[in-house]
Amino acid sequence: MRGQPQDFDRVLSSMCTPPHPVAREAAERYLATNPGDPATYQTVADLEDDAVAMLGDIVGLDDPAGYIASGGTEANIQAVRMARNRSVSSDPNVVVPESAHFSFQKAADVLAIELRIAPLTDNYTVDLGAVKRFCDEDTAGIVGVAGSTEYGRVDPIPELANIAHRHDALLHVDAAWGGFLLPFTDHDWHFGHAGVDTLTIDPHKMGQAAIPAGGLLAREDELFDALAVDTPYLESAKQATLTGTRSGAGVASAAAAMQELWPDGYREQYETSVANADFLVDALRERGFDVVEPDLPIVTADVSSELFEALREEGWRVSTTGSDEMRVVMMPHVTREMLSAFLTDIDRLRPTVNINT
Amino acid sequence: MRGQPQDFDRVLSSMCTPPHPVAREAAERYLATNPGDPATYQTVADLEDDAVAMLGDIVGLDDPAGYIASGGTEANIQAVRMARNRSVSSDPNVVVPESAHFSFQKAADVLAIELRIAPLTDNYTVDLGAVKRFCDEDTAGIVGVAGSTEYGRVDPIPELANIAHRHDALLHVDAAWGGFLLPFTDHDWHFGHAGVDTLTIDPHKMGQAAIPAGGLLAREDELFDALAVDTPYLESAKQATLTGTRSGAGVASAAAAMQELWPDGYREQYETSVANADFLVDALRERGFDVVEPDLPIVTADVSSELFEALREEGWRVSTTGSDEMRVVMMPHVTREMLSAFLTDIDRLRPTVNINT
Repeated sequence: MRGQPQDFDRVLSSMCTPPHPVAREAAERYLATNPGDPATYQTVADLEDDAVAMLGDIVGLDDPAGYIASGGTEANIQAVRMARNRSVSSDPNVVVPESAHFSFQKAADVLAIELRIAPLTDNYTVDLGAVKRFCDEDTAGIVGVAGSTEYGRVDPIPELANIAHRHDALLHVDAAWGGFLLPFTDHDWHFGHAGVDTLTIDPHKMGQAAIPAGGLLAREDELFDALAVDTPYLESAKQATLTGTRSGAGVASAAAAMQELWPDGYREQYETSVANADFLVDALRERGFDVVEPDLPIVTADVSSELFEALREEGWRVSTTGSDEMRVVMMPHVTREMLSAFLTDIDRLRPTVNINT
Repeated sequence: MRGQPQDFDRVLSSMCTPPHPVAREAAERYLATNPGDPATYQTVADLEDDAVAMLGDIVGLDDPAGYIASGGTEANIQAVRMARNRSVSSDPNVVVPESAHFSFQKAADVLAIELRIAPLTDNYTVDLGAVKRFCDEDTAGIVGVAGSTEYGRVDPIPELANIAHRHDALLHVDAAWGGFLLPFTDHDWHFGHAGVDTLTIDPHKMGQAAIPAGGLLAREDELFDALAVDTPYLESAKQATLTGTRSGAGVASAAAAMQELWPDGYREQYETSVANADFLVDALRERGFDVVEPDLPIVTADVSSELFEALREEGWRVSTTGSDEMRVVMMPHVTREMLSAFLTDIDRLRPTVNINT
């Protein structure tokens, strides 16, 4: 077998993180189970019910309909599919912010619907005026992002819900990454705060579960009926997944991680991530870099491409935004020591690249 | 945490099986990796290349384009999506046998295309005359099954390829389950035998890899370009998956299992499975049950619903075909001892249910 798995000690831009030890243990124990076949694999099917109930607690829903998906991409595709199937238009469209994850582009191709991409404000949240202009009688859904991929921003979810419902469209919130941080902020983002219809939240990102564990929740079971293929009504959201055989390891790890960490462990992690973000922002500004003020703990800074390449050559796994800013995501594995080592390398490499860096 | 994972000692109808020990070890080692982000997780990205190359050996393709998918359902949806996107018709259809897996119904709904379902012959393979009648200028693809879910049958793949190409349609072979058995038979089913364009083969079924590990292969890279969303051409099939974050555990376990078991280990398993199928067929016929003559090692027998329910109450995880026949799949975990215990329970329970059983 080749090499070794990627070490996390230089991974700064991934939205994935090593699973929490209880999540790893559960993943290994349930590796040989398939929640796509609940008649055979009954215990893991029950664990999925537990996981969905706990996600409901996190996202303000008492009796959630939903399932543990392969990831946020599947959850987003399914949400758009629900909106499309429910729509009476022969040419449905979905309005999304420019900050929306690539999975919505994929969804539009797969589902053969039109995507209308609304520009952002200067603060990287969606421009509500543009959303209103893009909505029409064919609009089947609107997407709001709660924790955007590049800048960690939260769109104005209650206002988006109002616009959606005025057009008889569904509101979908993509909280794939933000969902395990936002409970500890003052943002309005979930089913309890606004007329949200569907929501993506991924245990395998900040939830510290093992891959694959995304999550799709809906306000009511009937929304999942739009995904029924061979019957008019579904007994359970789980019958409507985009896959067949599914990973019991992911489901069990999601249940184990949330049981262990919600709410106190996740709160501690939020506080640690925010403190680390503040530390890095200050340190980069002291060194003269332009840094975007974070909201959720993602730090983006204007770093020259030469310095960026030099850091990658040192083994740092960093990526950039669409505007070529370096982007660091304060996942649980990103420690103060890692950030200090990163700054040490920035200081060391900077004079060796372009003098204008 | 609830209960225990399902034991496999009474699981007779699943097409999944515990992963081979080397596959489990690889899955655990690579649990915290994401092949959907190859720039960060480079070793597992290389392992995926290895796994695809080995699948190519198995399916008669020297330089395969493909990737390790979440499962056969994703692979089948993507194959239909390729056919649809490549088609010039404004109302494309795909022709599938009645024996085709439910994933094709799901694909038709998701992709908004028409599914034309061709009836089967008395031997449970697709009726070629019906396929020819159902094909027209809007036909984008035809599906042939190599190892059908209910009866383990193999459709006439070379003839289906000819029909497909006469209509400028793609031929997709669903060998999700059959692909690791068929190399040891005389069937014509893969890229080396016929004009096959795309093929599904799942390491997490008879390949003994961990879930999630399905496989989608295409004869050439250009077929994957039909799935490109934001660029006209893809550098790699891996950019075209239906998910975002992906399971490195599944990819690594697929590579490890195939490296260990192809071809000798898989050949031994084929011989064991066939011997077990023959054993069960003979034992059930001796007891007066009608048994469908197997091709690949799935045994289906006409068992009364009362006896079937009684067996399920004893903990046997058995399921039925659409015609209510009991179905046993000779997976690696299904041993001669299990089958003997099963027959013992059949003998014990039979007199206690309906006298006409």
